[in-house]
Formats: sequence, C-alpha cells, structure tokens
Amino acid sequence: MPAQNRQGKFITFEGGEGTGKSTQVKILAATLEKLDKEVVLTREPGGSEGAEQIRQLLVEGDTARWDGETEVLLHFAARRDHLVKTVWPALAQSKWVISDRFADSTIAYQGYGHSLDLEFIKSIHQTSIDGFKPDLTLILDLPADTGLSRAQDRELTLEEGEDRYERMGGDFHQRLKQGFLEIARKEPDRCVVVNAKGSIEEVAQRVMGVVAQKFDLNFS
Amino acid sequence: MPAQNRQGKFITFEGGEGTGKSTQVKILAATLEKLDKEVVLTREPGGSEGAEQIRQLLVEGDTARWDGETEVLLHFAARRDHLVKTVWPALAQSKWVISDRFADSTIAYQGYGHSLDLEFIKSIHQTSIDGFKPDLTLILDLPADTGLSRAQDRELTLEEGEDRYERMGGDFHQRLKQGFLEIARKEPDRCVVVNAKGSIEEVAQRVMGVVAQKFDLNFS
Repeated sequence: MPAQNRQGKFITFEGGEGTGKSTQVKILAATLEKLDKEVVLTREPGGSEGAEQIRQLLVEGDTARWDGETEVLLHFAARRDHLVKTVWPALAQSKWVISDRFADSTIAYQGYGHSLDLEFIKSIHQTSIDGFKPDLTLILDLPADTGLSRAQDRELTLEEGEDRYERMGGDFHQRLKQGFLEIARKEPDRCVVVNAKGSIEEVAQRVMGVVAQKFDLNFS
Repeated sequence: MPAQNRQGKFITFEGGEGTGKSTQVKILAATLEKLDKEVVLTREPGGSEGAEQIRQLLVEGDTARWDGETEVLLHFAARRDHLVKTVWPALAQSKWVISDRFADSTIAYQGYGHSLDLEFIKSIHQTSIDGFKPDLTLILDLPADTGLSRAQDRELTLEEGEDRYERMGGDFHQRLKQGFLEIARKEPDRCVVVNAKGSIEEVAQRVMGVVAQKFDLNFS
C-alpha cells in the first residue's frame, strides 16, 4: 500500500496453538473501542471472502497434503487478498486493525516448524505484498506442551476438521515456539514477547501495557 | 527439480481460448505413444489433486474476484503442486509430459491481458518453482475473434461455471494473443508459434513437424 495511506495502526498477535491469541485480540479490541477508536478485528489465514476459501485448503486434510513451498504460496495468496480487501482499506480510513496471526506465522510454521528455507519465505513476502509489516506484533509465549494441551482442551470449540496444524507432533511445536522467539529477537522494534502464563486478566494487563507504551495511550 | 533427474521431455501447449489446444495435446500424446513413448497428459491450472482444488478458485466466480497479484500467487501455488506431484516425478522416470497450458499462460493472461507488472510474475516464477521451463512450447495462434467464437460454440462442453476468463472482453483477448506472440519472440529456442487455422488434421501435421524436428523423431 502507498505509505501515505497508512493512517491507522496494524497490530498482530502471534504464538503457538493454545497461547490465548483469539481471547486477547477480543479484549484488546474492546479496550480500544472504549477509547473511541474504530477497530477492525480480523484473522489469518482468512479475513476476507477469498482468503477464507483459501484457508479451507490450508487448515483441513492430511498434514502432508502440500509441500512447504506450495503452502507458503497459498498463505501469501490468502494474505494478499486479506490485505487488499480488508486491512489496507481500513488503514487508509485511520482504523485500528487487529489480526489474530499474520506473516510471522508463516515464518514460524513453515520456516522454523517445517525447516523451509527462510530466504524463500522472505522473497515471497517481499514480492507478493511489498514486504508489508505490522506496526506492532505481540508474541504470546508459553511452554510448548502447555499451549498444546490447552489447544487440545478446546478442541470441541474448533470449526470441524480445522485441526491440521494441531495434529503435527510435539517437536514441531517446540520448533515453532523457538521460531517465534527468534523472530522477536531479530525485530525488537516491532515485536514484543508477552508471557502468556496466568489468568486471562493477567495476560490482558501485560498486553495493554505494551500497547499503551507503543502508541502512547492511556487505558486507565 | 535437480537437473540430473530431468530424463523425460516436457512439452507445453499455449494459446488463447478456442485455439484447439486440448484437441492437439491428445493427438500428440497418441502419436508419441505409437512410438512407444510413455506419455503423461496433463493440464493447468490443475494436473494434481491439490492444484485441481485451487483451479476451482481461479476459473469460477466473478471476473474481478482476485486482484492480479493474488491470482498469480494462486496460479503458482497450483503450478508448484502440479510439478511436485505430477510433472517432476514423471520426468525423473523418463516420461514425456504434455501439458495443456503452463507458466506462459500466467504471463499472457495476468501480464499482457491484465497489464500486471511482468517483473512481478518473473520473480514469483523464479522463486516458487526455481524458474523451471518446458523443453518445447507450442503456441497455437488464431485471430482473437475466431478463437473466442470457437470457444463460445463449445460452451456447452465446458464444465459448469468454468468460463470466468471467456467472459472477459474482446480487448482482453486481443492483448492475450499479442502477449503469446511476444513470449515466442523473446524465447525462440523454446517457443514455436503454430498457425491454428484450418482443419484439426492440418494443425496436427504442423504440430508433428515441430515436435519431430525438435526431438529428432520420425512420425511417418
């Protein structure tokens, strides 16, 4: 998107399965709305009509149905549609866009989790969406086994069949966690790691603290 | 694919709507089989289980449902799956693979037809499938209005709803034709333009002549 049209703020939540992202994005959205911000809550893969259709190809079916590179291409096709149809128009209207997952998930899942060449992902990211990045990324961090068992507990609340990533092994989820921490180390200005242990309220307090400081807001 | 595994031959047919590609690929396949070649007949978008699912997102629905860049990403996601699951394994087994459309269609349709930056397509081609190209590409050429009216005549034989590209305007199909000719001019070692006017047998004779010369075969 043209830089001058980026009037709003784009905040993404990242982290492994069961770290509480979808709960925290809702709490942050409600809190920002109390400050009279216009908020768009969205998610990836998905967030637009076309991207939700591509999502079905990614989250359902056999864990080995796509090779890593094909999976990255599908994620960025969905991501571009999400940006063009949902995120960029909202940012041009000065809205606050909060997304449950974005491009860092592709680096963590396909790059670190599935050991795909990070340069491949970087090149597709650069070409397909012009290297577009969020203003702030909150990485919710938990020990991998805690997150996975939380994710399994809520299995009944998932849309049917949408558990392709959760069925990957424990080693995969350990690499995922390390991948997210590595991303945060490489981009400390954009990414903040948030400890996701404790109650929903405790984690929400940590999230608010980070957002308040980054954008000079007063939530009290 | 590693170069040493490319034992077979990869031949693609390109051209606008109604130029007779699907008829000609079948005739060529049958002719090569008479010479005891093992032939794999395939098509794009599609040619593998996953790519056929992506195909549905591309050939159905509103003509403006994807922006040009997203469409290119979807085509190359499908193309990579097609290569990984169908084309590369067959070439490693010394088979002759004949595809009804391949990457030149993306350059012609999205690049020339929809005026998308050719460098964008080139970069995605290079990264996503390592710049992989056919041994021989036959570009079937007809005046755009002849091809389109042939395509409309056979409309009842299309799978239902698969006419998204045919519903694009006449100017689009004129740019498409020029695009294919330009591709052939840029890569004369790989591409041969075949006059697609005349009877099926006449065109087939021209195709056989090109294939015989390229691979030093004797069809008589």
